[in-house]
Amino acid sequence: MATIPLGRYLWERIHQCGINHIFGVPGDFNLTLLDHIYDVPGLSWTGNTNELNAAYAADGYARVRNSAGCVVTTHGVGELSALNGIAGSMTEQVKVISVVGQTSRAMQKNRMMIHHSIGFAPDHQIFSKASKDFRCAAAELMSEEGAVEEIDRVLRECFVQSRPVYIFLPIDLVDRPVSAKALERPLDLVNHGDEKAIEEAAKAVIEALASSKNPSIFVDCLVHRHQAVDEMRQLVDKLAIPVYSSNMSKGIIDDTHPHYVGLFNGLPSAPGVETAIQASDLVLSIGSLPSDTNSGGFTRRMKAENMVEIDTEVVSVKGQKTFSDAPIKAVLRKLVEQIPLDGMPKVAKPQLPERPTEDDIDSKMITQSWVWHRIAKYLQPQDVVFGETGTAAFGIPDTTFPAEVTWFTQTYYGSIGWATPAAFGSEIALADLAASKARARGRTVLITGDGSLMLTVQEVGNMIKQKLCPILFVINNAGYTIERVIHGAKQSYNDIVPFDYRHMLPFFNMPEAEAKKNFHRAETKEELEEVLGRENVKAPKTVQVVEVVMDAMDVPWRLSTQIATRGPEAVKEMKEAGFRVRDMGNAEGFWN
Amino acid sequence: MATIPLGRYLWERIHQCGINHIFGVPGDFNLTLLDHIYDVPGLSWTGNTNELNAAYAADGYARVRNSAGCVVTTHGVGELSALNGIAGSMTEQVKVISVVGQTSRAMQKNRMMIHHSIGFAPDHQIFSKASKDFRCAAAELMSEEGAVEEIDRVLRECFVQSRPVYIFLPIDLVDRPVSAKALERPLDLVNHGDEKAIEEAAKAVIEALASSKNPSIFVDCLVHRHQAVDEMRQLVDKLAIPVYSSNMSKGIIDDTHPHYVGLFNGLPSAPGVETAIQASDLVLSIGSLPSDTNSGGFTRRMKAENMVEIDTEVVSVKGQKTFSDAPIKAVLRKLVEQIPLDGMPKVAKPQLPERPTEDDIDSKMITQSWVWHRIAKYLQPQDVVFGETGTAAFGIPDTTFPAEVTWFTQTYYGSIGWATPAAFGSEIALADLAASKARARGRTVLITGDGSLMLTVQEVGNMIKQKLCPILFVINNAGYTIERVIHGAKQSYNDIVPFDYRHMLPFFNMPEAEAKKNFHRAETKEELEEVLGRENVKAPKTVQVVEVVMDAMDVPWRLSTQIATRGPEAVKEMKEAGFRVRDMGNAEGFWN
Repeated sequence: MATIPLGRYLWERIHQCGINHIFGVPGDFNLTLLDHIYDVPGLSWTGNTNELNAAYAADGYARVRNSAGCVVTTHGVGELSALNGIAGSMTEQVKVISVVGQTSRAMQKNRMMIHHSIGFAPDHQIFSKASKDFRCAAAELMSEEGAVEEIDRVLRECFVQSRPVYIFLPIDLVDRPVSAKALERPLDLVNHGDEKAIEEAAKAVIEALASSKNPSIFVDCLVHRHQAVDEMRQLVDKLAIPVYSSNMSKGIIDDTHPHYVGLFNGLPSAPGVETAIQASDLVLSIGSLPSDTNSGGFTRRMKAENMVEIDTEVVSVKGQKTFSDAPIKAVLRKLVEQIPLDGMPKVAKPQLPERPTEDDIDSKMITQSWVWHRIAKYLQPQDVVFGETGTAAFGIPDTTFPAEVTWFTQTYYGSIGWATPAAFGSEIALADLAASKARARGRTVLITGDGSLMLTVQEVGNMIKQKLCPILFVINNAGYTIERVIHGAKQSYNDIVPFDYRHMLPFFNMPEAEAKKNFHRAETKEELEEVLGRENVKAPKTVQVVEVVMDAMDVPWRLSTQIATRGPEAVKEMKEAGFRVRDMGNAEGFWN
Repeated sequence: MATIPLGRYLWERIHQCGINHIFGVPGDFNLTLLDHIYDVPGLSWTGNTNELNAAYAADGYARVRNSAGCVVTTHGVGELSALNGIAGSMTEQVKVISVVGQTSRAMQKNRMMIHHSIGFAPDHQIFSKASKDFRCAAAELMSEEGAVEEIDRVLRECFVQSRPVYIFLPIDLVDRPVSAKALERPLDLVNHGDEKAIEEAAKAVIEALASSKNPSIFVDCLVHRHQAVDEMRQLVDKLAIPVYSSNMSKGIIDDTHPHYVGLFNGLPSAPGVETAIQASDLVLSIGSLPSDTNSGGFTRRMKAENMVEIDTEVVSVKGQKTFSDAPIKAVLRKLVEQIPLDGMPKVAKPQLPERPTEDDIDSKMITQSWVWHRIAKYLQPQDVVFGETGTAAFGIPDTTFPAEVTWFTQTYYGSIGWATPAAFGSEIALADLAASKARARGRTVLITGDGSLMLTVQEVGNMIKQKLCPILFVINNAGYTIERVIHGAKQSYNDIVPFDYRHMLPFFNMPEAEAKKNFHRAETKEELEEVLGRENVKAPKTVQVVEVVMDAMDVPWRLSTQIATRGPEAVKEMKEAGFRVRDMGNAEGFWN
């Protein structure tokens, strides 16, 4: 029987999952494992500038491919450095396969003081223990016996649960032989669920819809993670009733869709949105992720008896019936099949009031109230927009996207620094997708801030090395403005280490003459208008950096309103510091 | 009774431990806690460019102060990002106090989906669980009742065990009142041990020494971590017998000390060193940390019956008697007191053979065989040298230091990227020490490589922001040379993202004209000679960068010899790749 090395098996399987690029950082316990990547046709190594960035890149790649990403690190130092990135994928339900090259079994058994270990007579498995709560499954391989089954099992879990998995491979196992034939067994990556539960759930949902008068749909981001966007879009088209999104799900239904009303985030919603959705006698919620930051501080209050919730594995109808083992994709598919063309309520799209005029509308400087609307005109179909936690993530909800724009933000986990390496992963993913003609190439548009960029800036160098062409908008507002509005507006801890962005591209090895053309800076609206019209900013062939200078004390209204949901004390503090805040009355805070 | 806020109490106590600067990154769960730093006279906030860098900076600060460092992060995202840095401090026994601002108790109790949490109905304590194996104690505060005792307890453990501790503080506890009087109780940070055990251990050590004919001393790095360097130096002077160091302890005894012989690292030692120490009938080992990388791949083989080992808490005499609860500092102090002036053996210092002439001695290019000896002439008394894991850490052992040079390397943990932020922490520490007239300011000399610098480069910006003046030697050898010599010399995974260092200082906001003066580049020996003679490189008043171009396939002999200890296969691979290797014969490898 023909055999292949276990390391080769691993990469073949990972490639079969749809992955073409492996992110990571080499280390002496993964080098021989990395060798086998080069043996798999169609699979490439794409090293990163550090392990946290590698994990973020794998996350971004997975999101854009709407499949899985893979990151490899080395024992101890590597896996711990990546851990925060993996934790983000865990909570945002992104499929990341984290492969760790471990010390040999003999070293582990003899508790040898090999570099990267902890203490005397070290337990080499404590690093694996540290990631236990940040993964949904792990293959802790200790023999070639059963290894292929373990690998297949965790790859399936990665897809079924849509969360990170770990594969730990001691270095002495890399070249152990396993059956080559095992590769021929197709991987089953689908969450099939219980057919009866799916049928019954769909039936109950249809009944609820049929008996309602004024239903609407609320779409959230987990519908994307569980690869059910197509089914959801078909359902929306078939039902033809008003649709709302969240901060995190914006763009999953086109902003231009005839039934799309707006972004419903509880109190921090545009005028009229809450009134419109609360008028529904039935809200069909699909793939909800109700974190504080994705629900206006838990103010997206909807009555259970008016709700039909299609969550990732469970369907609940009006707080009464619950159907388990009913995966979201299967349920939506069933609904699309079974919803009758007649007998469903017809609902006209609510008309929202005009956007209120902001009091700084005449400013010549670039303001939060202006910039997101201006960005809207810059965007194009097929763009993939990454918005970093900070003013970007709270500002972009005001940007009306053209059709077919994809939007990612890490709003639940909220680890600043994520977006830059994630945008790197996005560019690699877009190149993959274009190569396979799965979609047009599109642009990656990163919108980040000076504070967040600081944490992971070196990955910009990798964009240049890999000849990618994202557009990086860097809001230079002299520090952590999102923290200033929360607390300590003038405290030095909210200052950052300032960078001079003019020198960023040359530092990261773009030739100076070229770098000069690809760096852009705007302090005024007029300057930004001019920059956004430049040919290379519109259709970049290499990395573009647009430095957008803004006031340290200017925040998007959605951010100050979100903070105002904490209660009058928070409002008082913001006002005293000089921020403009919508009055929330005496809304109860959740903060303490 | 007067009260103070718990947050204030925490900082006052940390300041009482000798800490003047708090490293970290702000986040919304630590902002109000950070406010109280500003209330403590003599204590300052020193923010970092990301959390991993902050942890490394605290580690470097602690090493240089030979006391503790402190890092503050925010719930979840912050503490996980810092974790790899803390783990390094754990295994290298560096005192780091890791303070984490947590979500409020109500949020935790109600398992609220607050940003940074994991999943639905999240357990907010899983982040604390993740660091459990990387700390020696933790105060998991959940009430102001007993909080001051818990804080005092873990601060003591940090010093007694010389390892990291965590203090977790839910945000709603920050301003809870505690007794101000509790601050007046002096912290007891000393490991007193058992007086009888200390007495008996000292007696047994003295007897062993007295009955030996040709004793010698082997000093390792844990003597530094447990604050026993002064006592050890007094002991060396009193015994006046030959002294050896390890890779990690170099400089703790001056290279110029009349009794210092050399660095003993098993097989990868300079000619004559092993023969000399093996001739001893008794080796007094002090503070040993025998990891693979600090023992020539476990080839520092010494017979137990010839050994007296003074470890951090235990003394073992000739493999026969063991004394527990005998802390290294107390034992050494007792030995200094009790060793008689007469009756101890007199041993002449062994003479080592001349250093062999390297075959690339005539190269005009900068070679590994030349550069470390050249750096020796550049160093000055009071310098603090940080050598990054890579060719630097294996090259600098060949650098003969002037007197009073301090040397730090993270040779056991070996997390590349550590040295740059640690050098930042060093500069802050040196400024503290100079301000208190504890020692002359000295220079921080960082020697890193292009691969390692890539991981944590943004902290260079902080050096500029804080107006520090380290000298950064960056070995530009086009990738991870330390990995190339281990495996995959020509594989693309050992390539890195190239930076153009000419633009580094301007990118990090040093004005261009100034940056031009403070950046230096050398491709040849002649150029490096010239650079090292420049006034600002000798006596820097701002950050200096010296780019040292070297060949990707040139490694220090200690590194290839260390790898050769793995056995003939490793030697074959190195030779086939084109590396020069000392022949190790058929030495058994430990690697598999």
